[in-house]
Amino acid sequence: MSQSPLDSFRASNLTSAVSQELTQALGNKISFAMGAREQAAQTVTHHQPQLPDAVVFAQNQEDVQTLVRLCNQHKVPVVARAQGSSLEGHTTALQGGVCLDLNAMNTILEVNQGDLDCRVQTGVTRKQLNEHLRDTGLFFPIDPGADASIGGMAATRASGTNAVRYGTMRENVLGLSVVMADGSLMKCGTRARKSSAGYDLTRLMVGSEGTLGIITEVQLRLYGIPEATSAAICAFETTQGAVEAVQLIMQMGIPVARCEFLDAVQIKAVNAYSKTNYPEEPHLFFEFHGTDAGVAEQATMAGEICADFGGKGFQWTSDTENRNKLWQARHDAYWASLALRPGCKGLPTDICVPISRLSESLLATRAAVEASGLTATMVGHVGDGNYHLLILLDENSPEEWHAAEKLNAQMVEKAIAMGGTCTGEHGVGTGKKKYLPLEMPSALPTMASIKRALDPNNILNPGKIFDLD
Amino acid sequence: MSQSPLDSFRASNLTSAVSQELTQALGNKISFAMGAREQAAQTVTHHQPQLPDAVVFAQNQEDVQTLVRLCNQHKVPVVARAQGSSLEGHTTALQGGVCLDLNAMNTILEVNQGDLDCRVQTGVTRKQLNEHLRDTGLFFPIDPGADASIGGMAATRASGTNAVRYGTMRENVLGLSVVMADGSLMKCGTRARKSSAGYDLTRLMVGSEGTLGIITEVQLRLYGIPEATSAAICAFETTQGAVEAVQLIMQMGIPVARCEFLDAVQIKAVNAYSKTNYPEEPHLFFEFHGTDAGVAEQATMAGEICADFGGKGFQWTSDTENRNKLWQARHDAYWASLALRPGCKGLPTDICVPISRLSESLLATRAAVEASGLTATMVGHVGDGNYHLLILLDENSPEEWHAAEKLNAQMVEKAIAMGGTCTGEHGVGTGKKKYLPLEMPSALPTMASIKRALDPNNILNPGKIFDLD
Repeated sequence: MSQSPLDSFRASNLTSAVSQELTQALGNKISFAMGAREQAAQTVTHHQPQLPDAVVFAQNQEDVQTLVRLCNQHKVPVVARAQGSSLEGHTTALQGGVCLDLNAMNTILEVNQGDLDCRVQTGVTRKQLNEHLRDTGLFFPIDPGADASIGGMAATRASGTNAVRYGTMRENVLGLSVVMADGSLMKCGTRARKSSAGYDLTRLMVGSEGTLGIITEVQLRLYGIPEATSAAICAFETTQGAVEAVQLIMQMGIPVARCEFLDAVQIKAVNAYSKTNYPEEPHLFFEFHGTDAGVAEQATMAGEICADFGGKGFQWTSDTENRNKLWQARHDAYWASLALRPGCKGLPTDICVPISRLSESLLATRAAVEASGLTATMVGHVGDGNYHLLILLDENSPEEWHAAEKLNAQMVEKAIAMGGTCTGEHGVGTGKKKYLPLEMPSALPTMASIKRALDPNNILNPGKIFDLD
Repeated sequence: MSQSPLDSFRASNLTSAVSQELTQALGNKISFAMGAREQAAQTVTHHQPQLPDAVVFAQNQEDVQTLVRLCNQHKVPVVARAQGSSLEGHTTALQGGVCLDLNAMNTILEVNQGDLDCRVQTGVTRKQLNEHLRDTGLFFPIDPGADASIGGMAATRASGTNAVRYGTMRENVLGLSVVMADGSLMKCGTRARKSSAGYDLTRLMVGSEGTLGIITEVQLRLYGIPEATSAAICAFETTQGAVEAVQLIMQMGIPVARCEFLDAVQIKAVNAYSKTNYPEEPHLFFEFHGTDAGVAEQATMAGEICADFGGKGFQWTSDTENRNKLWQARHDAYWASLALRPGCKGLPTDICVPISRLSESLLATRAAVEASGLTATMVGHVGDGNYHLLILLDENSPEEWHAAEKLNAQMVEKAIAMGGTCTGEHGVGTGKKKYLPLEMPSALPTMASIKRALDPNNILNPGKIFDLD
């Protein structure tokens, strides 16, 4: 038998009295079986998995309330999860306790076509929602890559490629139902498009990573599927040229729907993986949404601006099939990166800076990669100033992990010094905890006060975002 | 001498020891003079003024910190104000204490053209900012009507006519400096366009109406002045037709910059006041921002949709002078309303509903006005589902005030039952306090917990938004 990293944590920390009480309340929705606990500990990331003591498969809001109320009484941690696609160790049971699996709460409760909104249970995934919406002429634009749950996306304030046009989960959650630490159900927000009624608890819960409450239902904004979509691609001599083009496009108010940067190493990886022959230079990929005339005009204007900054071979199309071909490199980027070094593990970084500092940030990061001796590709949601390295590591090399951590720290520290953030869209979890004191030293005491006020026993995803003294 | 409603509150409640300590710390920036106190008690609204015990004219952040720290030590209320243009009694010194006048903190600290952002002191007004930005090609779009201070707009989560395109203060504040109840300075947010780093304290402070902290600096999003602007106007046979046209325009994703509804009574008032001859029917007023071709296309599409819903005489123009003429009725609406009944006082209402319920809500409100025997005009930011009555009252008639309060309550209760909110953009202050338990019964305990955690002595604008037990 192979030695699992989980072995040392196999013993459940729940007393038998607590286990019994939970079982009495939740019946066969709770499992103490090793298989379920091991599965709940799995994540897609490099963060060390840790076994929860039990797993609850909630079927409805009342199950969540029951569990949280009992856990609060007995001071047992509750760590919510659904798809487990978060990237910074958000679902790790750092202090054991109960993993709350929300996947079964996946009902789309209502779609209001006339109001461009819907209400879903927390475990509904974004692809499931868009599939459901297909015949309504509406869509939900936030696309973090993974087929994450809507509740998880809200909890981590997710965004992705479309954020430059449609905003992040911050802008697209209208209201929430949240189970609070005492097991009570709190509803915040309304179906109105705007409101000045009291504290914005919706926004406080969005991005709170399960530490202030468990999101059970989400009211979302939807959008009409645009009449026309066009895609464009352009190679650049320099990273600086590409970024300056983006900056002017944003200043001109051209309403780009997507604006993605791939660096030369990433393009090289795609050429090798997809047998394409893109020039091995920095590239921008655009998508435009609007009317037929509008997307043509947007693409033409973007093309002219790109040419002014050393862009070469700008191509655009509004034909669906050709759009997919144009964007192939972007679609293949992740797998192409991993294929650069077969068997490797990918460590993603995630910073966001003011766009005026973006080119400086990208160049400094690329230089830091070279100096580190590591292999890494670079992809950016550059309209927002947000980008990622995917650092390709030998899982068994502590030296490489150490170098990658150092590289990540360099990126983050420089981003913060530029007025940016340690995480544009992945969240803090455990991975970015150490950077918050650098980014927002004076805000942490306020966050801690709120945490203590809303979760006095520190049962909700303890040890995430920041540590309480 | 005439008897002022303030007379009964003339005695300062500050002990002489506290007054002395404040004077020692703040020198000539603090005034106990009746003139200053009376001026600080004035508002533009019908809410009963109440005298603060002293007024502090803060010159900088340190003054605010000094004052708040001392007031916290002595449990003295602090009520911040600048222009005093808020509409729901936000700046009333309900429990006396110190009025903190922030008007002198009116420096524009930085404008970052490349990043489309700026940082201003709290007392900068929106017109001052746009004047300053004039030569940069940028503008700040949020327009609540009054020339409010940016800090006040943030504190009340203000919006106005442009919100349908550019969002509210919620979407346009990137970061804040806030003096907390203990006098410490808290900075939240970054200059990055998006961030997933910890609790969204920026959004928590936006709309907290001075009850969680005193906003001293605001980092704002700016926008490029559009290449072209067009305006349009259209009369409708029915309110329902106008609203259905708006609904389809929103669903189609036509990016209207402004979309305003004036009802027939409002139009009649304008005709009388401005000697115009608009048909005395419900009207929509539009503004479109974009390229020359874009604003023409948007106006044409909107015109076609309006025609499908009984719109008559749709006109549009992109010429500046003609735009102003087309929009004259909207610009004159407020004064035209007041002129309907010379010497009257205007009581504004403010609800926001899901747009699918808007026509029903408008019609019910108009019927309630008729039943009440009151005179009122109606203007709506209908792209957001938000609208206002201006109820025209005889200041000396308790019966009319009572009837107006009843009418307001009817509107609010119906809006909440429709999934809407008691305040789309004016805030809660004292005026909407009684409706929050109806709108968000389960959220109020969480708000109260946060208030207690961040302001344990309840010195920050006490008695606003909700009462603590």
